[in-house]
Amino acid sequence: MNRQWLYANPPRGKLAAETFQWHEAPIPQPRDGEVLVRTRMLSLDPANRAWMMGKTYRDALEPGQVMSGFAIGEVVESKSAGLTPGDIVEGDWGWQDYAALPAARLTQRTIAAPLELLIGPLSVTGLTAYFGLLEVGQPKPGDTVLVSAAAGAVGSMVGQIARLAGCRVVGTAGGQDKCDWLARELGFDAAVDYKAAGLRRAIAAACPGGVDVYFDNTGGPVLEAALSLMNLRGRIVCCGNVSQYDVERPAPGPMAVPGLVVTKRLRMEGFIVMDFYDQRAEAERRLKRWVDEGRLKAIVDMVDGLEKAPEALIGLFEGRNRGKMAVRVG
Amino acid sequence: MNRQWLYANPPRGKLAAETFQWHEAPIPQPRDGEVLVRTRMLSLDPANRAWMMGKTYRDALEPGQVMSGFAIGEVVESKSAGLTPGDIVEGDWGWQDYAALPAARLTQRTIAAPLELLIGPLSVTGLTAYFGLLEVGQPKPGDTVLVSAAAGAVGSMVGQIARLAGCRVVGTAGGQDKCDWLARELGFDAAVDYKAAGLRRAIAAACPGGVDVYFDNTGGPVLEAALSLMNLRGRIVCCGNVSQYDVERPAPGPMAVPGLVVTKRLRMEGFIVMDFYDQRAEAERRLKRWVDEGRLKAIVDMVDGLEKAPEALIGLFEGRNRGKMAVRVG
Repeated sequence: MNRQWLYANPPRGKLAAETFQWHEAPIPQPRDGEVLVRTRMLSLDPANRAWMMGKTYRDALEPGQVMSGFAIGEVVESKSAGLTPGDIVEGDWGWQDYAALPAARLTQRTIAAPLELLIGPLSVTGLTAYFGLLEVGQPKPGDTVLVSAAAGAVGSMVGQIARLAGCRVVGTAGGQDKCDWLARELGFDAAVDYKAAGLRRAIAAACPGGVDVYFDNTGGPVLEAALSLMNLRGRIVCCGNVSQYDVERPAPGPMAVPGLVVTKRLRMEGFIVMDFYDQRAEAERRLKRWVDEGRLKAIVDMVDGLEKAPEALIGLFEGRNRGKMAVRVG
Repeated sequence: MNRQWLYANPPRGKLAAETFQWHEAPIPQPRDGEVLVRTRMLSLDPANRAWMMGKTYRDALEPGQVMSGFAIGEVVESKSAGLTPGDIVEGDWGWQDYAALPAARLTQRTIAAPLELLIGPLSVTGLTAYFGLLEVGQPKPGDTVLVSAAAGAVGSMVGQIARLAGCRVVGTAGGQDKCDWLARELGFDAAVDYKAAGLRRAIAAACPGGVDVYFDNTGGPVLEAALSLMNLRGRIVCCGNVSQYDVERPAPGPMAVPGLVVTKRLRMEGFIVMDFYDQRAEAERRLKRWVDEGRLKAIVDMVDGLEKAPEALIGLFEGRNRGKMAVRVG
């Protein structure tokens, strides 16, 4: 039996249990050129919610389809020359135990590392942090790097990589507990609770020399505050807009755009990690070396069981996770 | 006698006659290291209004001071080794017949060209269009370039330079008359009246292949529409935010920031022309050659008499000018 979660009811406002529907189907048969994959882990990401809002860098989700999501799995049957049973692969086949799909839609993972690393620092998440910060943000040693959703999957990596790059690192997160954790466990120089009063003032106090690179995972009030604290020729890495994903009606953009972008000569630049995949192998080597040397902590918030996926994704938007949220399936 | 306009009453909302106050003072005496300059022409620019809103790339204007503004003048007395009477200089000494100031605050103009060119295509205005489009926007032949306030000083230059760079050029302007003029006189491929209904749809129709470079002089609704029409990896050159200068309370930024910046991998980048002044001499040579060859029209909307400066600046925000607005003083 192939257990599945369907994307059933488009949310009006927040994600809810009714957004998803449990389904059981026969295990599919791979055709020529296809392989049968058994899901090992699912990656839960803010982008999953954004895909429900309309076309982005991919088509919008359609009600009735298996819920989309990035996953890691094991080939259990192959009708493709390139893959053999036992191979570990990644791809977007969504929230289900099994999928039959063309080998061309899968990426084989050959790097020797536990699945927790393959879903975390060595995954799309880790590469997003790596390329976004280093290639788009262009931090220099001594720069102040501010990152929002700093306790999240990408943010927790951005902060650690910025430290390795010799920067002063300040994060925003929801609640004092997470802020304390960022400073204590991940070496952030300071962390600001975005839910507390006086957000702009608190960030200003934590960044007395202004902000050189702002890695924006959230948009919204943190972006507005950051714009006013950017240094001349600062770089804003536009990675996500999570403050506006799980809402009925997205808010207008920050007042300061484009005014401050002009007067401070800022650069705001969006990116998608796949844009940098020609450099992927080297990035993975560096990330793995940092993990092996104990200089980069893999923070994975693992949930056990496919049946828990909807609850976990809802929890992500309530800020319940620390680091990468993933589901162990099989 | 030195006739002056003072910046008297900070506007709450729109510029008005009361914003300025006529004043007559003795002609100043240059001290050692200074020169006495007689104003020949004043440049009227949207930035003049932005300076009233607070600190930007320069300090905010202070009530009681002579109204600031870029000017071209002639040295009439010199106590500085570098300048002699008859020299043509430019600088920001504001709305007055005479000023005594240190030679270091002036730039001598040695390029042989009539004052209309020095205040237009060969001025800060022309260089802003040149560097903003070519250096920040990085247009490639065949790209579609959209420019807002296209009938204004910078916009009318951007459109012409984009044509010289082999691009398809679309402008927005206020009213069908200006739009017709852009197509007929300046060679725009299309122009859209931003005051008419259906702005986004009209721009989309004028840019069937999407927008590769948007040169943003205005912010506001044109920026919002442009964001949704940008092609992947498009560049938005943030030059001005004129839709938000002459208002009591600036509007929030476009809804699409940062969402579309992420998914389309856009780059929004602000600049100030002075950032590129190391390349100024070459830019002026190229601009002058284009004018001499008849490939670039110098559109200067000249007003006669210092006494008309406030009325002319107010008219600028009502969209009364075409091309560069300037005041002939002496």
